[in-house]
Amino acid sequence: MPQRRTVFFVSDGTGITAQTLGHSLLSQFEGMEFNQVTLPFVDRVDKAQDCLQRIEREALRGNGQPIVFSTLVNGDVREVVRRANALFVDFFEAFIGPLEGGLGVKSSHTIGRSHSALDKQEYQQRIEAINFSMAHDDGASHRDLGDADVILVGVSRSGKTPTSLYLALQFGVKAANYPLIPEDFARNDLPEALHAFKDKLYGLTIAPERLHEIRRERRPNSRYADPANCRLEIEQAEHLMRREGIRWTNSTAKSIEEIATTILRELRLERQVY
Amino acid sequence: MPQRRTVFFVSDGTGITAQTLGHSLLSQFEGMEFNQVTLPFVDRVDKAQDCLQRIEREALRGNGQPIVFSTLVNGDVREVVRRANALFVDFFEAFIGPLEGGLGVKSSHTIGRSHSALDKQEYQQRIEAINFSMAHDDGASHRDLGDADVILVGVSRSGKTPTSLYLALQFGVKAANYPLIPEDFARNDLPEALHAFKDKLYGLTIAPERLHEIRRERRPNSRYADPANCRLEIEQAEHLMRREGIRWTNSTAKSIEEIATTILRELRLERQVY
Repeated sequence: MPQRRTVFFVSDGTGITAQTLGHSLLSQFEGMEFNQVTLPFVDRVDKAQDCLQRIEREALRGNGQPIVFSTLVNGDVREVVRRANALFVDFFEAFIGPLEGGLGVKSSHTIGRSHSALDKQEYQQRIEAINFSMAHDDGASHRDLGDADVILVGVSRSGKTPTSLYLALQFGVKAANYPLIPEDFARNDLPEALHAFKDKLYGLTIAPERLHEIRRERRPNSRYADPANCRLEIEQAEHLMRREGIRWTNSTAKSIEEIATTILRELRLERQVY
Repeated sequence: MPQRRTVFFVSDGTGITAQTLGHSLLSQFEGMEFNQVTLPFVDRVDKAQDCLQRIEREALRGNGQPIVFSTLVNGDVREVVRRANALFVDFFEAFIGPLEGGLGVKSSHTIGRSHSALDKQEYQQRIEAINFSMAHDDGASHRDLGDADVILVGVSRSGKTPTSLYLALQFGVKAANYPLIPEDFARNDLPEALHAFKDKLYGLTIAPERLHEIRRERRPNSRYADPANCRLEIEQAEHLMRREGIRWTNSTAKSIEEIATTILRELRLERQVY
């Protein structure tokens, strides 16, 4: 069995920043697998000591030197964890000095500021976006559709729901979504409710083979999942979107993050940072 | 008007890693405000040149030297953007060398690996978690409740829905949620469907004043939003949770990320990285 290094993401807050950065760097080492442990809320010296012991125990297990991705801000806490026999990747220390120099001010060294709910107005906007996207999932409501930042359209299972939720949660964008269904293709027209909002529409399409796979999981041996039907629905949806001048992207090989980023860029929507 | 520096998040992928890192570091400079621009999918030299020009234009506007947070992996692309008159915070270069040394292997320098949909099985698990959480929002379905990793309970508007969605989207955790409503308090018992899954339950509570504010936004002048009723519902919910031995956290001052992290830690749920 190949050696699996253990990677620790250590933070005085949620650990999400440490995890995101660490994951991004580790993805550059293809074929290697890592045991991943997140240690959040390490905001006091006594917790740092528990954390140090945990890393030290791991270092003795013969899986190679552990790697620690740290976003610890407090100097006293950081010094404790740094003592571990580990490769210490220190995000805070690497960059805060140059930033202080460039900005000409000292940083506050305040813990847990990232991913906190300090800005009430910003937080409120995010919650509103989530409520909006939930209420407007799958064409569930036409109410207040004019408030949408974007309305996603596409055949069933083309990725509309995860993308809408991600846009709301990660970027505070109000994203509704509407399915394009055989009835729309028979009428050869968009759902009536969408006519007034054509500038907000954005389409998702998908490879017929992939759509067939996804639908088969949900409803095996159905007309819904049939390969020929999947192909036909996609052809009809693309035809309709082309005729109506709706921009679209193909979701087949894209992650939710990539689809969401593509939409924000093409519609020139501002992205809030959470 | 105070000077507002412009900050660029430049990436060959979605820019989400660069944005997370940058946001985390900038949050250490309290009281400063920044214009934030994300430049995703900068994966070729010609795009890097557009990007360079954009940063150079900004540098001439008299708002101080721009700051560039880069996760660019490709050396040729990076060298172009680096020429800008900007404070260049190079996330990749700072850490990839030490990691290569520590791991004893060269990295692949492959662009866009983070937040990509390369691992189909992992991706599938995430989509399933999202579908599950959507289908089990607000007690909508009892079906397959045994598949849940966690079932959140709490009074209406205590933060259950955003937390469930975040757990699914960010961590691939199947999170159902059930409201605790006056009918449950009258019976002085949990909803019937939850009896079999007491080890999966986790409670959210909230300060009565905050609950009143949130509910008033939705239904002004209602009994639902009345301060005394908010206080009573919370008392009854906490009483019920205490009696049933359900762990809970107070969501009032916490972000969605902080609530989700607390739940994962307390229930010892593994967190996948997306």
